[in-house]
Amino acid sequence: MSDDRRHLLLIGIGAGDPQQLTLQAIDALNRTDVFFMLDKGQDKDELLHFREAICRRHIAPDHDYRIVTLPNPPRPQVPYGAPKDDAYRAIVAEWHHQRSAMLADAIQDTLLPGQTGAFLVWGDPSLYDSTIRLIDRLSASATLNLGTDVIPGITSVQMLCALHRIPLNQIGESVLITTGRKLQQLINEDEYQLPATTVVMLDGNSVFQHIQRDDLMLYWGANLGTEHQALISGPLQEVTQRALGKREEIKAKAGWVMDVFIIIKKQCY
Amino acid sequence: MSDDRRHLLLIGIGAGDPQQLTLQAIDALNRTDVFFMLDKGQDKDELLHFREAICRRHIAPDHDYRIVTLPNPPRPQVPYGAPKDDAYRAIVAEWHHQRSAMLADAIQDTLLPGQTGAFLVWGDPSLYDSTIRLIDRLSASATLNLGTDVIPGITSVQMLCALHRIPLNQIGESVLITTGRKLQQLINEDEYQLPATTVVMLDGNSVFQHIQRDDLMLYWGANLGTEHQALISGPLQEVTQRALGKREEIKAKAGWVMDVFIIIKKQCY
Ligand SMILES: C[S@@+](CC[C@H](N)C(=O)[O-])C[C@H]1O[C@@H](n2cnc3c(N)ncnc32)[C@H](O)[C@@H]1O
Ligand SMILES: C[S@@+](CC[C@H](N)C(=O)[O-])C[C@H]1O[C@@H](n2cnc3c(N)ncnc32)[C@H](O)[C@@H]1O
Repeated sequence: MSDDRRHLLLIGIGAGDPQQLTLQAIDALNRTDVFFMLDKGQDKDELLHFREAICRRHIAPDHDYRIVTLPNPPRPQVPYGAPKDDAYRAIVAEWHHQRSAMLADAIQDTLLPGQTGAFLVWGDPSLYDSTIRLIDRLSASATLNLGTDVIPGITSVQMLCALHRIPLNQIGESVLITTGRKLQQLINEDEYQLPATTVVMLDGNSVFQHIQRDDLMLYWGANLGTEHQALISGPLQEVTQRALGKREEIKAKAGWVMDVFIIIKKQCY
Repeated sequence: MSDDRRHLLLIGIGAGDPQQLTLQAIDALNRTDVFFMLDKGQDKDELLHFREAICRRHIAPDHDYRIVTLPNPPRPQVPYGAPKDDAYRAIVAEWHHQRSAMLADAIQDTLLPGQTGAFLVWGDPSLYDSTIRLIDRLSASATLNLGTDVIPGITSVQMLCALHRIPLNQIGESVLITTGRKLQQLINEDEYQLPATTVVMLDGNSVFQHIQRDDLMLYWGANLGTEHQALISGPLQEVTQRALGKREEIKAKAGWVMDVFIIIKKQCY
């Protein structure tokens, strides 16, 4: 069966530990003709190198592939604490549009019909990552005839739980996964309720430091899977300062820091 | 360094697709002397066979291992719709205690100091699974000197998103992961709010059929990764009957059905 469609694979590569690649992901790497990498600028250089190392390590020596690096227009900044309103959504949509147009050109230029391109997506493609939406936009455009597959990867949240050896949910209870921005909005309210488990990602401001309650446990981790990996856990009020200090230390040493944390209500645990 | 501790590995094996095992999990399988399998009764026979197949397929032929199957006292049933109160918690705690005592005996009998035992955990060990708590209980008992490691696995939620090719979160929004029981409680309330994304697991009653709202999209999947895998998506009211029918069909054909679904607010998507 001849197939004139171009194919795109969105391959989840785990969140920092190359041993956490799945067999399915490795198989996908070895079917890929062109890897598209978005260059997010100097801060995230290490992440780009991680992706290149994954290719070197897990692709059979006789498999031919190319790496095409695309500049990535910086995600528009919205003042911290500002509401995530329609204006914010419009700005982000325009940013998606630019990236999509650029990628469409790159695919036309470098991928032949019938060939397979791939994105290596940090963690799992479904969790706080814009690649699926980028590809949706692309597929909606009439000019490219694209077939897409998504391959799941271990998330930073799963790494955090495994390293702390904790269950994510309390028995029979719900789990809320949210962002630093949304958690800050929540705790700004006069009276707020937290579910049994709250997972917080994309938090550049260590919002946990602004929570004044003594019924919570914190499970925190930074730069998981890398040589600067750090883990801290304990009653929130007792370990907050230690986590803040560790975060600064890692940022100084590694040049960048990414952290993720879980807040659990004590009576549940 | 001689090590007299016994080791236990909790290995996430993915939720039905053996290709979704990680390299770390395969490495762990090949370090294991004894696999402990909990026999959940006839309904779940297929899951037990899947675990045995994983061992056969991914363990090197020269690696020696044993499989020890333990009877698993059935999880106490609580009438559906009854509140998850203290009585419920006590019953579940007693159930955990029984399993823990039985496992402690099995470890003493079959695992020598320095050896490694393992549990193959469906999906990811952190998500609605009791094995981590079981081992916590065991480790707390003074008689066994146990070292434990948790190895993450791809969850059924990640499979569902990948197969539907959808992001889990809406842009900048939160995700609630909950159970059929909790969702039913929520929609029983006069006025209830749903987050942008709600993931529902452990739902034997297809609670989505009781939601009377026309602003929701349903992404449903059953027996993912198996030959009976089914996927249905669309506006909730339009696809509910189809999903209910498919669920019955799979149950009849496969002898068991496990489903998971995501509800997304339309204006967000
Ligand atoms: C843009 S999101 C991508 C999440 C990714 N798709 C996943 O599945 O983990 C980036 C956020 O993930 C978390 N994160 C990702 N990798 C991490 C790591 N190695 N250590 C700590 N946090 C990490 C941080 O909260 C960070 O702000
Ligand atoms: C006891 S929980 C275990 C979840 C597992 N630890 C995971 O990571 O997916 C079982 C629930 O997971 C979901 N589930 C697990 N495997 C599934 C599959 N192959 N297809 C559909 N749903 C599945 C269903 O909602 C089921 O009720």
